[in-house]
Amino acid sequence: MIFKSGDTFEQTFIVTEQIYLDFINTFGDKNPLHSSDEFAKQHGFNSCVMHGNILNGFVSFFIGECLPCKNVIIHAQNIDFKNPVYMNDNLVFKATVVEVFESVNAVEFKFSFQNPALKTVAKGKIQIGILL
Amino acid sequence: MIFKSGDTFEQTFIVTEQIYLDFINTFGDKNPLHSSDEFAKQHGFNSCVMHGNILNGFVSFFIGECLPCKNVIIHAQNIDFKNPVYMNDNLVFKATVVEVFESVNAVEFKFSFQNPALKTVAKGKIQIGILL
Repeated sequence: MIFKSGDTFEQTFIVTEQIYLDFINTFGDKNPLHSSDEFAKQHGFNSCVMHGNILNGFVSFFIGECLPCKNVIIHAQNIDFKNPVYMNDNLVFKATVVEVFESVNAVEFKFSFQNPALKTVAKGKIQIGILL
Repeated sequence: MIFKSGDTFEQTFIVTEQIYLDFINTFGDKNPLHSSDEFAKQHGFNSCVMHGNILNGFVSFFIGECLPCKNVIIHAQNIDFKNPVYMNDNLVFKATVVEVFESVNAVEFKFSFQNPALKTVAKGKIQIGILL
């Protein structure tokens, strides 16, 4: 098994205007919270809130491209959104292996995204399988 | 409260080539499971497996655009991937309100995606807040 409990990975992701526009173009979610600064401010936010599922796209990239092996598949993932993400926020993503299930070739990570103000904006878990 | 336990929503989503290419273009996940038919077949799949997080993009659209109110925000979501999704699979998405937390203006849905062979390809839960 290539992973062991405690292995840690760190990565920076920026929610650029391009990623935000591409996400809307791909999935069509133009909810006013994500598209109207006025609506977002009325509800107590600084400006448009970026879609939480943009962070799940970053999780996809992390699992698919940033691990020491490519023969992986996501079995399950969860995410709790704790604080808003705004355009151009520089997010520090950290993931740590919390459990290795040798007998079924599965690995569980916990992860978090931290914003420039050092607030955790989201955290969760990912379980992957190693393809044999 | 606009939602009540048992409220059910249904929607069809197709993982088109355009959505698949846009997802890769947006997030950069070109893992061979998602980009090489040969690799996917070597690991027991029919062809390239679509990214699980494309389904999370559909969840974003569902919450942001398909509910009877727009003043919503996702608090948390989880998803279990049960079976592979292939390009152009026509997925039937069903979501049901399982709990309404009146005192904190939150609503929990369970959801599933079913493929043309009537297999559940993914299921999970979404918790949203109603913005006041």
